[in-house]
Order: sequence, then structure tokens, then C-alpha cells
Amino acid sequence: MKLLTYSSGGEATYGVATDDGVIDVGKRLGESYGSLRAVLEADALDAVREVTAGQSPDSGLNDISYLPVIPNPEKIVCVGLNYEDHRIETGREPSGYPVLFARYAHCQVGHGQPMVRPNNSEQFDYEGELVVVIGKQARHVSREDALSHIAGYSIYNDGSVRDWQSHTHQFLPGKNFDATGAFGPWMVTSDQIPDPTALTLTTRLNGQVLQHAGTDQLIFNIPYLISYISSFMVLRPGDVIVTGTPGGVGMKRNPPLFMKAGDTVEVEISGIGTLVNPIVDE
Amino acid sequence: MKLLTYSSGGEATYGVATDDGVIDVGKRLGESYGSLRAVLEADALDAVREVTAGQSPDSGLNDISYLPVIPNPEKIVCVGLNYEDHRIETGREPSGYPVLFARYAHCQVGHGQPMVRPNNSEQFDYEGELVVVIGKQARHVSREDALSHIAGYSIYNDGSVRDWQSHTHQFLPGKNFDATGAFGPWMVTSDQIPDPTALTLTTRLNGQVLQHAGTDQLIFNIPYLISYISSFMVLRPGDVIVTGTPGGVGMKRNPPLFMKAGDTVEVEISGIGTLVNPIVDE
Repeated sequence: MKLLTYSSGGEATYGVATDDGVIDVGKRLGESYGSLRAVLEADALDAVREVTAGQSPDSGLNDISYLPVIPNPEKIVCVGLNYEDHRIETGREPSGYPVLFARYAHCQVGHGQPMVRPNNSEQFDYEGELVVVIGKQARHVSREDALSHIAGYSIYNDGSVRDWQSHTHQFLPGKNFDATGAFGPWMVTSDQIPDPTALTLTTRLNGQVLQHAGTDQLIFNIPYLISYISSFMVLRPGDVIVTGTPGGVGMKRNPPLFMKAGDTVEVEISGIGTLVNPIVDE
Repeated sequence: MKLLTYSSGGEATYGVATDDGVIDVGKRLGESYGSLRAVLEADALDAVREVTAGQSPDSGLNDISYLPVIPNPEKIVCVGLNYEDHRIETGREPSGYPVLFARYAHCQVGHGQPMVRPNNSEQFDYEGELVVVIGKQARHVSREDALSHIAGYSIYNDGSVRDWQSHTHQFLPGKNFDATGAFGPWMVTSDQIPDPTALTLTTRLNGQVLQHAGTDQLIFNIPYLISYISSFMVLRPGDVIVTGTPGGVGMKRNPPLFMKAGDTVEVEISGIGTLVNPIVDE
């Protein structure tokens, strides 16, 4: 099942994407669950399946405006340097633990929405990443039990403003510019992705392939990440883990390649879909 | 005016603290503004002043359970290494920009609530800090205009798990353990603190003074912080900036001094009040 958050006719809602369009779940279940996050908090994916079974789409996929899959997660936990070729291109030493940093939810955009290159930097870079969406509260979870806490998988473009990212040793500014974190187009429920290490991630800028890797290359794999994060804080339904980007980022190319207004950036992950965003200037 | 969020008889509400007790604003204005954050978003401090003028307290200060002043900010932006004596004790080089990292709102506790020493670390440390609460949306704000975007000031104990903070170069794990960020007891509106550089901060553990500094010692002062942060992302009403801690943290003492169950930690800032929290084990 493909779950998404979107607006149609100016109204925000959530639904299920099919080959033919989108079934509006918000209008069917909105009084019980006001958002996709609320569905996950109530462990109500079965109710979504029931209410959408046999239904015709309410909208075409081209007739909606995509919003971030989870617009309002309690936490967005991003993993840095989690593919070996990316770690090497950055010149960083290997780490005994995952490198974690935060995004604030305000900086997210949906599929098709513009990612904004800020006026105060020329160094706006792409990072295609596999996303884990938490479905069941997790605290002190073992690696063996970790996958059972996942509701589904999605795609992120962790748009990064490189000069601001390196103002100090902490990444926060370069990772939290307004409208730089693209999240979509939907999440695919975990029953349809039994093995999240068997996916292929490809990032294209204006059609040119710039990142291409298997998710089996994650240094700290998904069970490790969930176990580690849950060893210091609770993970709750709707929380988002952005698992890291492969080698090939723009900053480390020779010459460096940054995104500019008029560009189109795509992140495709097999079994999930393709997240497409135009770049605009602030 | 001292604004706080609390629970009374099991019901969460918000109000105004006076010398004699707490006036419940939630019961008077809750239909219009469901939280203190909502009051700030609506720029409705005058409505709070009107509805509380001449009213008697609904509860005594000892009869309420304090909650984090803003339990649900969109953003909690923490500043590291922002007092020279603390920078020197950590052995860090001077920085041309503020060192910023994030807390997730889930890890906050209120005045009087326990701060939790996790089972997987013996290195639970205190950090007394002055808090800025944003009152007016800020994006690309100059230093000259920055103070006009502040609703008020409060106190934070940025409880830090030192070994986890240094797992990698990014601070996130050590700064986001559940129930480690104490925020309270209230915020004092900015009209009562015309000069936030003229305050004195004191941290005590079991009565012993461990940090003592003037807020004039901030390396990057409050106008600078608001201007810098707003140059990469929007600051919204209710957002929280935790401005940094002075020298004297437990980890850098000889021998190191960490908090343990049964301890009481206090952070006092002149003109605001005293944030007191007991330490318990997970």
C-alpha cells in the first residue's frame, strides 16, 4: 500500500495511491484519524485497507499537490556518512557509531514542490536517501526486533547547503534551510518491502545519473539504526529516519556541481518510486 | 508577566504566575488559544493581560505540576560553546559562527519534574542556560531588529549525556535522551527584561554553586543568534533558543562530577527565577 499526504482543491488530506489515482482516506476516516501520522499512532493501517478496498480513485495522480509524506513528524533523524564511498569522498574517518543530526519538520517539501536554493549560498547540493517511517513505539529495541517497528519506506532528498553546513563542526544550519528537505512521493508499507537492503537508489540531476547504489551498502543498517537510536530516545509512530546518502554528492565532484534555479532533481528507489523536485531561487 | 504551562488536577493548561499562585488562562481563553504556543502565534499576550487583570489565583504554586514552558515548540535550537570559559574548558577552537544543534521536544521536562539519568551512562551532566522564546516570526532579521521578535526569557537545564555526545562529531545522541531537557519554571515577558545581557546565571547541584556567570559573557549575543538563525530558517512564535552554558560543567571538573539519583539540580537566573529538578535513575 502506498500512503501519501496531499492537497486537492486546496484541502489537505491523506490517502492511498494506486495505478489509477488517489483514494482519499482523509474524507473517509478523517474524523477518527486527522492525518497519516494519526493513522500510524493508532496502528490503523488495517482500517485504511478496509475503507479503500474496491474503491475508485477520487483524484488523478496529476490532479493533486503532494505534501511531505509525514508533514509533522515528532522527529526527523538524519544519518550522515552512512555509505562507505560517501564517507571516503568527504575525507572523514570511519566512525564506531552512526553520525546523527536533526532536521526540523518546517523545512520539508513534498514531491513536485520546489526545493529552494537560498540567496545566501551558491552551494545547494542533493542527497538521495532511503527513509524509514516508524510504525510502532520503540525504546531499547534489539536489532532482531527492529524491523517490526517500521511502518514503511520512502524517499528523501536531504538538500544541503554546504558552506553553511561547515560553518562549525555541527551540521544544523546547512541541513535546515527552509524548503530544502524533499520527502515523497509516498511511503510504501513494509509488507511490500520485505528486504530493505535489496533496493537500488539513483539520483539524477537534469537526467544525469549522479548517485547510484544498493541499500545493502549502508554502513549502519536499518536494524542497527533503530536499535541505536532507541537506546537513547523513544521512537514514536510517524518518526522519520533518513538513512544516509551514497557517494556522488555535488560538492565532492571535480569540478563541484551544485543545483540552481531551473534544474530538476530526481531520487528513485526501486520498489518505492521517484521523488522529483524542481529547483527555484529564494 | 510570568507565563507557564502546567497541569492541575490532571488537566494540562497554561496560565500566569503571581506571588500568590497561578491564574488559569487556559480555562478563560482555551477555546481561542489552546496552548501558550497558540497565544504567542496569535500575538495575544494583551488578551492574557486583560483576562487576568485583578483575578485571584486559581491554584497555589505548590498545588500544580509544572510542564515545559512550551511543551511543543516547532524548534528547539541549542547553542554550544557560547561562553568563553566553557569553550576553553572543552579545548575547542574559537568559532566564527555559533555552534548549533537541535533538541527534539519530546525530551523536555518541566520545573520540579525528574531529569532521568539513563541506565546506559554514568556521565549525566548539567548545563544551566538562558532561554529566548520567540514571539514574532523572524526571517532574515537584522541584529538591530532582533530583540523585537522575542516574547520572553526562561531557563533551561540542557542535561547532557557526555559519552553519548562524543560518540561522533555530531552532538545529537547525548543531547536528546528522554527526560533530560528541563525548561521552566516559566517565561518572563520581554517587557520585564529590557536588557537580557544584564542577568546572572547560577547552577547549583545539591546546593553547591558549580556555574556562575553574567549573560553579558555570551560570545554570540542574543541579537546575533536571532539574526544568524533567521538567515537560514524561519523562526516562529513559540520557537525556543537555548543560548549556551557557562564554564563549570561537571565533565570538565577534576575529578569529573556527574549527576546521580537523589541529587537536586537548580539553575537560577536573576529576574526570571529558579528551575529545580530532582535526578532519578531510568
